[in-house]
Amino acid sequence: MTEAEPAVFRFQLRVYWEDTDAGGVVFYANHLKFFERARTEWLRSFGHSQEQIRNDLGAIFIVTDTSVRYLLPARLDDQLDITVSLLRRSYTRLSFAQQAWRGAELLAEGTMGVACVSAGTFRPRAIPNELLKNIG
Amino acid sequence: MTEAEPAVFRFQLRVYWEDTDAGGVVFYANHLKFFERARTEWLRSFGHSQEQIRNDLGAIFIVTDTSVRYLLPARLDDQLDITVSLLRRSYTRLSFAQQAWRGAELLAEGTMGVACVSAGTFRPRAIPNELLKNIG
Amino acid sequence: MTEAEPAVFRFQLRVYWEDTDAGGVVFYANHLKFFERARTEWLRSFGHSQEQIRNDLGAIFIVTDTSVRYLLPARLDDQLDITVSLLRRSYTRLSFAQQAWRGAELLAEGTMGVACVSAGTFRPRAIPNELLKNIG
Amino acid sequence: MTEAEPAVFRFQLRVYWEDTDAGGVVFYANHLKFFERARTEWLRSFGHSQEQIRNDLGAIFIVTDTSVRYLLPARLDDQLDITVSLLRRSYTRLSFAQQAWRGAELLAEGTMGVACVSAGTFRPRAIPNELLKNIG
Repeated sequence: MTEAEPAVFRFQLRVYWEDTDAGGVVFYANHLKFFERARTEWLRSFGHSQEQIRNDLGAIFIVTDTSVRYLLPARLDDQLDITVSLLRRSYTRLSFAQQAWRGAELLAEGTMGVACVSAGTFRPRAIPNELLKNIG
Repeated sequence: MTEAEPAVFRFQLRVYWEDTDAGGVVFYANHLKFFERARTEWLRSFGHSQEQIRNDLGAIFIVTDTSVRYLLPARLDDQLDITVSLLRRSYTRLSFAQQAWRGAELLAEGTMGVACVSAGTFRPRAIPNELLKNIG
Repeated sequence: MTEAEPAVFRFQLRVYWEDTDAGGVVFYANHLKFFERARTEWLRSFGHSQEQIRNDLGAIFIVTDTSVRYLLPARLDDQLDITVSLLRRSYTRLSFAQQAWRGAELLAEGTMGVACVSAGTFRPRAIPNELLKNIG
Repeated sequence: MTEAEPAVFRFQLRVYWEDTDAGGVVFYANHLKFFERARTEWLRSFGHSQEQIRNDLGAIFIVTDTSVRYLLPARLDDQLDITVSLLRRSYTRLSFAQQAWRGAELLAEGTMGVACVSAGTFRPRAIPNELLKNIG
């Protein structure tokens, strides 16, 4: 097989009280926060922070759609591995597949779409080349 | 036309500081909280609270999947109308279409799936009849 | 007795899943959000929103200190009354006493300090007169 | 001088979108979450997790009071050091001094009180000896 597997970035985090709800497990919506943290660290792994992108390149990434399946509950004190895979890229948009793992158990997975907009006008714009060439 | 439109429940809420992020708008994941509040009030409109369902009927509803498109930003002090429409019901699951409106502007929309589980074991179970006959 | 009691503003809210933690009760830090919502509505009761104050008067209020005692747990579905009393006012600062009640039970109480800063520079500035004369 | 300085535990974290508000900085109430995470890791540094304490020793720690001063804003992408110092301990309560630093800048500081309660009844109880002897 000659096809390269898409690179998978992993980010580790811990579940704290703030993440849980009265069901005793992680409040499902908080998986979106975990996915966001992992995408931020994925970007940082290429040398880019979102503040720097806004200030230097005048661009902001906004989340346009999220689709998540919650399979198993995450609990207080769990250590989770959050994965990031770049699914698709166009001139103005990125699409990611993400998963939340506790060891070998898949707890949640989904796809997230982001669009690049101008920091001033919030109008769609091309993703800066400095970024595109790095996140390959 | 003889088909009845599905009933649409509306719940009004206000955007506060806690809901926003450094982009100056509502943090997208918080729309899931808004949708959750509206489903809770939809249930309450039939005379049921989730605490009562857990204590009296031994059942809990857990969210299994959320799919949301974020169309326009919501801002501090905005008053939003969150809608709830029951899309599908089976013995163990409910599926909802939900939208977030600011006046005539649609800001976000999505579908949410919930499953009924036993409060003790978290195993799937039939939705209590007392509930099903009410939410018709 | 000729002393006037300080006016107490009341704001009602409901406890949702998002507010709770794995202890089965409201996550204590979320009382600060409840207090914030109530202060925002207290301000709105005088005809002012924070967006309007920022845009029209160039002023932002930032929270400088919070001191809270958590007395009794609040639970899912609870309806709470959050109170706001203006304790002190100076040219640049306001101080509030706030409480969270469930019926006749006092659940939490505290004092909050806010400072007025310039929207552009975040430097301390006088509270706009248009505001001060209203919140008296 | 023969008095030992109280040991200071440090925990490092990153500021993400979820932590910020429309003011462009960390929402002040979220410093309480940061302090909580650091106390959890402080406890873990002695070999204890809160789940283990609940399950094995039947004890839960609940936060009874928080007093915080917010001195300087924390921003997106900031790396913060959160400190934990045990101020006082009694049979049933612990009291902590905590600070949030960005490099040499002190951003927030406060004192937090926690009480030990029985996991079943939520009544005050003695802090388990297994714990007390470790956190000395």
